[in-house]
Amino acid sequence: KRTHLLVVGVYLLSSCRAEEGLNFPTYDGKDRVVSLSEKNFKQILKKYDLLCLYYHEPVSSDKVAQKQFQLKEIVLELVAQVLEHKDIGFVMVDAKKEAKLAKKLGFSEEGSLYILKGDRTIEFDGEFAADVLVEFLLDVIEDPVEIINTKLEVQAFERLEDQIKLLGFFKSEDSEYYKAFEEAAEHFQPYIKFFATFDKGVAKKLSLKMNEVDFYEPFMDEPVTIPNKPHTEDELVEFVKEHQRPTLRRLRPEDMFETWEDDLNGIHIVAFAERSDPDGYEFLEILKQVARDNTDNPDLSIVWIDPDDFPLLVAYWEKTFKIDLFKPQIGVVNVTDADSVWMEIPDDDDLPTAEELEDWIEDVLSGKINTEDDDNEDEDDDDGNNNDEEDEEDDDDDSDEDENDDSDDDDDDDE
Amino acid sequence: KRTHLLVVGVYLLSSCRAEEGLNFPTYDGKDRVVSLSEKNFKQILKKYDLLCLYYHEPVSSDKVAQKQFQLKEIVLELVAQVLEHKDIGFVMVDAKKEAKLAKKLGFSEEGSLYILKGDRTIEFDGEFAADVLVEFLLDVIEDPVEIINTKLEVQAFERLEDQIKLLGFFKSEDSEYYKAFEEAAEHFQPYIKFFATFDKGVAKKLSLKMNEVDFYEPFMDEPVTIPNKPHTEDELVEFVKEHQRPTLRRLRPEDMFETWEDDLNGIHIVAFAERSDPDGYEFLEILKQVARDNTDNPDLSIVWIDPDDFPLLVAYWEKTFKIDLFKPQIGVVNVTDADSVWMEIPDDDDLPTAEELEDWIEDVLSGKINTEDDDNEDEDDDDGNNNDEEDEEDDDDDSDEDENDDSDDDDDDDE
Repeated sequence: KRTHLLVVGVYLLSSCRAEEGLNFPTYDGKDRVVSLSEKNFKQILKKYDLLCLYYHEPVSSDKVAQKQFQLKEIVLELVAQVLEHKDIGFVMVDAKKEAKLAKKLGFSEEGSLYILKGDRTIEFDGEFAADVLVEFLLDVIEDPVEIINTKLEVQAFERLEDQIKLLGFFKSEDSEYYKAFEEAAEHFQPYIKFFATFDKGVAKKLSLKMNEVDFYEPFMDEPVTIPNKPHTEDELVEFVKEHQRPTLRRLRPEDMFETWEDDLNGIHIVAFAERSDPDGYEFLEILKQVARDNTDNPDLSIVWIDPDDFPLLVAYWEKTFKIDLFKPQIGVVNVTDADSVWMEIPDDDDLPTAEELEDWIEDVLSGKINTEDDDNEDEDDDDGNNNDEEDEEDDDDDSDEDENDDSDDDDDDDE
Repeated sequence: KRTHLLVVGVYLLSSCRAEEGLNFPTYDGKDRVVSLSEKNFKQILKKYDLLCLYYHEPVSSDKVAQKQFQLKEIVLELVAQVLEHKDIGFVMVDAKKEAKLAKKLGFSEEGSLYILKGDRTIEFDGEFAADVLVEFLLDVIEDPVEIINTKLEVQAFERLEDQIKLLGFFKSEDSEYYKAFEEAAEHFQPYIKFFATFDKGVAKKLSLKMNEVDFYEPFMDEPVTIPNKPHTEDELVEFVKEHQRPTLRRLRPEDMFETWEDDLNGIHIVAFAERSDPDGYEFLEILKQVARDNTDNPDLSIVWIDPDDFPLLVAYWEKTFKIDLFKPQIGVVNVTDADSVWMEIPDDDDLPTAEELEDWIEDVLSGKINTEDDDNEDEDDDDGNNNDEEDEEDDDDDSDEDENDDSDDDDDDDE
């Protein structure tokens, strides 16, 4: 039986290497993604634990649009092939042909991917790429709550600093409060991680009392204890919904579009910092400091982007924002037109201090620094080195360091 | 000019979102990858700083092979589109039609991607995916040596524990020894990172004397100082080549095939551990301990795979190796046929200790545990729960814990 399986494995997946064990899947040409209709809906729903639906606009006659649709189809086929033994169904829903069905399912945004799991609908609002999708689906089929038992697991838990996490301490898996916690977790899976412990030693180490749930904002040293324990499912869900926009958040491939749509008054404060690069690491540490000092400001939510997470977007961002992403950057982006202004960081060996950053952010939040002021100058003297001086004439009597409308650094950016 | 650029950017890259700023590139249909011939070779070489060559076997008439070739072409076209303003040329070299040219260029392995940078040829031996390739090429065009100036940068440097790194202390950029270090770095760029400092404080903190170079093996607490300073370029290159197979190494998308080909006597000891998962984190810590205790054993090189780095391979590995990758695993894989045996870890809350792991590894290195012993039983009773007992009859008088030829855990693995 093992031999048979191996042959199937190797046959399905092709490789030009002599060694075995690393065969990357390439699409085998088999159709696994089916079109959904009112007719086959019930049957398909019954067949799978999880259903992944691509809700698309009608395929147009335009050639480029067709090609792009085909590429999305191939991505889905590849994902379906890779996850073939995981009991997940993949279907397409044509927004025009199946308008009635789509309405029944509550689908609203064409081009979206929805996952049906039991009676829940999860929207995938991330990068439409095979690897991102596969990882997302594997996270969806895992248990909604991860149990922490040992000291080393506590260490691992503490190291997860760049995302929201919840941790509860309960008597056992049979506790009704644990069950409410588990139900609440399902609302946010896989975007927000829920952890629980039944171990007194672990609870003590993390200062948790019985039935208490701590909410950890990303990059903060201390969690917030959710008040009025024990909690019902609804109370937990409501608390998370109220607190889910952090002061500093990392843009993640799996929910990047959702994050981007959650702008504040049409803008995002965006910081680029490559964590694996010494300058980027340093800048991120400064950002964390700023976030910790301003965690109570509801108007502040900085989007941190690690360019390493989005290699395909680096060149696009450099072009659109006219910045050099080999070094740290922070700026304001208008999400309607991608117009932007960036803080001047003349030398990556001399990054702004936390105080300088806070002053700059204050100017952004007060509107003193904004994406519109520089637009007139832009059209004619964007290439010039001398526009900083001109820009400063428009400004108030403040000091110059923290309010440059346009950075000089993009001059070496090729066009 | 900015407006113009923005329009081009938005036009090239398509999106169905109302917000701007996150437009993922989709292939625009323009041909940017050209076929290389003896005729156009010199002209193309002159035109670009960097040349990326895909050396492929002649396209066959087989339909599946053709489709796979087309997909690779699209990946290259997308990479070329994304990096359009970075002055990189992309070409295809047909192994049959351009055999003479390929020989001249020193190309040997069909299906490989080569990068020409100045007079160096770099082979890309990683995952053939647009994002991996783009990141690789961006790393190739960066400076070969990264300079460390501040305390926070030292912290960032120290945090990079999962890869080989070198750090040198030199008087200045003009120092002849720094120049030799830089030249040596170019031999290994972008696979091995070279850092330097000109700052006495940084050097003191990292216990470096003038012109000294430290070599850091992944996951080790202390570096090795390369003897007999100061060093020539050749001495540095030779030292790195001699020491570049570490006791514990992470499989990386950008050089996974090279790592896999570097087996020891036809096998790899492979450990799966998801770093972002508490169990996986714990297991990795135990692995690091084992690696530190055995760093002087030249026969030991454990390949650590974080499943998160290879979402598309998870299902393939689970099938091929018959293991559950939601929990940590360690096993021996025969690279010729992907036959494997895995340590029995009955419960992920009760991971093996460093000592138990070392005993198991000893049995692997001595051949007591190997991939062949269980092959006879496999054909008929692979589904059975009772084969452990049978297997143990073949074994010596040792205790049972650490020598299970086949794990029971794969019974829940679907087929």
